Amino acid sequence: MSLAVAATGWRLLLLLCAAGLGAVGAPQPPNILLLLMDDMGWGDLGVNGEPSRETPNLDRMAAEGMLFPNFYAASPLCSPSRAALLTGRLPIRSGFYTSNARARNAYTPQEVVGGIPDSERLLPALLKKAGYASKIVGKWYYEEFPINLKTGEANLTQLYLGEALDFIRRQRSLRRPFFLYWAVDATHAPVYASRPFLGSSQRGRYGDAVREIDDSVGRILALLRDLGLQDSTFVFFTSDNGAALISAPKQGGSNGPFLCGKETTFEGGMREPAIAWWPGHVPAGQVSRQLGSVMDLFTTSLALAGLQPPSDREIDGLNLLPVLLQGQLINRPIFYYRGNTLMAATAGQHKAHFWTWTNSWEEFQQGVDFCPGQNVSGVTTHTQEEHTALPLIFHLGRDPGERFPLSFASAEYQEALRRLGPAVQQHQATLQPGQPQLNVCNVAVMNWAPPGCEKLGKCLPPPPSAPEKCSWPH
Amino acid sequence: MSLAVAATGWRLLLLLCAAGLGAVGAPQPPNILLLLMDDMGWGDLGVNGEPSRETPNLDRMAAEGMLFPNFYAASPLCSPSRAALLTGRLPIRSGFYTSNARARNAYTPQEVVGGIPDSERLLPALLKKAGYASKIVGKWYYEEFPINLKTGEANLTQLYLGEALDFIRRQRSLRRPFFLYWAVDATHAPVYASRPFLGSSQRGRYGDAVREIDDSVGRILALLRDLGLQDSTFVFFTSDNGAALISAPKQGGSNGPFLCGKETTFEGGMREPAIAWWPGHVPAGQVSRQLGSVMDLFTTSLALAGLQPPSDREIDGLNLLPVLLQGQLINRPIFYYRGNTLMAATAGQHKAHFWTWTNSWEEFQQGVDFCPGQNVSGVTTHTQEEHTALPLIFHLGRDPGERFPLSFASAEYQEALRRLGPAVQQHQATLQPGQPQLNVCNVAVMNWAPPGCEKLGKCLPPPPSAPEKCSWPH
Repeated sequence: MSLAVAATGWRLLLLLCAAGLGAVGAPQPPNILLLLMDDMGWGDLGVNGEPSRETPNLDRMAAEGMLFPNFYAASPLCSPSRAALLTGRLPIRSGFYTSNARARNAYTPQEVVGGIPDSERLLPALLKKAGYASKIVGKWYYEEFPINLKTGEANLTQLYLGEALDFIRRQRSLRRPFFLYWAVDATHAPVYASRPFLGSSQRGRYGDAVREIDDSVGRILALLRDLGLQDSTFVFFTSDNGAALISAPKQGGSNGPFLCGKETTFEGGMREPAIAWWPGHVPAGQVSRQLGSVMDLFTTSLALAGLQPPSDREIDGLNLLPVLLQGQLINRPIFYYRGNTLMAATAGQHKAHFWTWTNSWEEFQQGVDFCPGQNVSGVTTHTQEEHTALPLIFHLGRDPGERFPLSFASAEYQEALRRLGPAVQQHQATLQPGQPQLNVCNVAVMNWAPPGCEKLGKCLPPPPSAPEKCSWPH
Repeated sequence: MSLAVAATGWRLLLLLCAAGLGAVGAPQPPNILLLLMDDMGWGDLGVNGEPSRETPNLDRMAAEGMLFPNFYAASPLCSPSRAALLTGRLPIRSGFYTSNARARNAYTPQEVVGGIPDSERLLPALLKKAGYASKIVGKWYYEEFPINLKTGEANLTQLYLGEALDFIRRQRSLRRPFFLYWAVDATHAPVYASRPFLGSSQRGRYGDAVREIDDSVGRILALLRDLGLQDSTFVFFTSDNGAALISAPKQGGSNGPFLCGKETTFEGGMREPAIAWWPGHVPAGQVSRQLGSVMDLFTTSLALAGLQPPSDREIDGLNLLPVLLQGQLINRPIFYYRGNTLMAATAGQHKAHFWTWTNSWEEFQQGVDFCPGQNVSGVTTHTQEEHTALPLIFHLGRDPGERFPLSFASAEYQEALRRLGPAVQQHQATLQPGQPQLNVCNVAVMNWAPPGCEKLGKCLPPPPSAPEKCSWPH
């Protein structure tokens, strides 16, 4: 993955692009700023009902923009969800999954052999065509950074913030459009905050991390305003998957009224906080009922840049501009995959579960619980239960917590199935799964000797190659 | 209970009072408008995170006023909670409880012998002294009103709205201060809405009822504005107990991230939506962390009227004006009673459970579930479990859902116990329980021949007196 887009040798071209656009009277396309959280839950925002109300900046962002209460990750785990954001495609299409076992969440620890295939078209590379300078700040970094596990102190969010502010200022002075992907990770266990934020929350250390991120978002938006960029910068805030309830309450967040969390395909695993902000374009104070996806950020970003999504492959992301700018609602299903398995689908207000699973009995009995305090009989199952013939269907409007399956005999069930069935069948009939990329692990591929390791005295000899099937327990 | 305060013969005295106040230059005290919901849950408001966001008027009320995320009912059941609001006292003090069995929620069906003792001082009667005209609209009414149980159609909220609007207009023209207690009940099963609202919600019939109430609140506040009364009318919105999850999802609401619902002393049973609105006095857009109680509405209303609470008895309600007007935080515990039993107490962020109980195994196995989909081991118990020696303690900031009891060995537990213990001991040492009023039931006391029954041809002969111990299963 070539995400760190270097600017060298680019400046001239960008200026030419901008000049070219100017010549025909077209305005420069807007800057794009994606604020992607790590394991932050839907319920962690004050505007989504977190009782301690400690996200004044995000709440204000929502009040000045459009809130999406029905916005979804593309996977209940971080890496596939992020790969989907960057490709606009479900992991099952791009190959960012495993077939080692059914319905397993795979990701990209250092020993995995594979990732996003080179054949995929990534958002920053596509945006280059429209003259964008791109930068990722966050979840990928060069050096291990110390987090004091006892106190939770780390300065990393401040570094990420500084990088973001510097990049924005620099692009502003160069007057080039930018794509900034700000992928902070303070809300992923081990959670951390810098000293001024430690102990500042009513919610413990996790809340401290949220407060620092909230403060940082406030500073970023303030800088955009100070630089006069607020109406030429599209900002979107969301998260990669639901709160990690296995780490709650000290190191995990809140999924509000939703069922279960990260790793699961219940709403708590995949419904995300989501806010669009673009003063003067996205009307203030709006709430959209649109079913949205992180994959839409791919297509929407391209649309903002005046680009079409790649036409040689299926793209799952929608262009949300009609939603954002005209308040339209686009009819589309949401698919909930876990690895190679379509677990559930939502259309309109109804969600059908074709498979249910939390985690194995063995793990559960050892205390690994993706749904602490929650137990919906026959739904939060510890064995993989198939319901493809007669899916469990919930009405997410009346029952966002997925506690009350519709009666199979009810007219509502029959009608929901009539609407969901064809959408799912069409999806499955036309789906061409990519080659699974996350099947093989090999400690030899770990980053033993990264570039620059000599200077740091940290080069290690790689061990002999020992490829094996990765073990994906969830 | 003499709640329907007649105005006849009163007008002159009121005008004299107002004139008297005017003469010494004191402004007329503000009008007081309490909007008390029935079984509406904390999570039913958009501003508290309800995903369908269907309470634009209440959300605006919060944006224009002060939101209280930590506001509590005085009981997890309607009648005792309402009695506490009107008396400013815990039901255990006023006698509004039963001692027929331990920890039972009692209320006032028609066959109960008893209620609020005559010795209690009720808010409307006290407010008379400051010249207030009082009216209750809602949960007490004269005639049975038809609700179409098949469609859920009923026009009752519109009648309640009309009564409220007429009363406000009338008091405005008379220029007298008023106390209006608007106790609508459309969100209590069987839930209902009038035809324009039926089917208008994403949340089913319960949501229709919420939408009609939200619309009505918007109309009431609009009338206050139209009449120029907005800065001379203190409005408070809250509910009598948590959402009735036994009726969910079609006839019951949402307690957001909180545990269980109505009838229980978990947060879902007693934490309520709460908004104060008084433009020009209560600053807009505030969120207060104050631990509040419906009993505070008694004391705060008296303070608004320039009155002291009765000094000859313990009053549990606080005067919230320092919170509302100056943003102060007042240190106070919250006590969670179920009938004659102190089940739990909160001080600061910590809540200690001395007893846990949802309902009996017998009932639970018949499908009566106060905590559907929720199960916290050793916490949501189906037998009455005593923890007085070693209470279960939760940190409500990190863990609003009461899912993760603190470890007994932790320093945090010990410190929380050190702070909670004395407050609870002091409360219990000085408590003088009132004579229990809700022990005896007798069908002979039902309203067989209410005043006016002759005209309606609805007088019935009362059966012979047959007093017996009431059966209170919860």
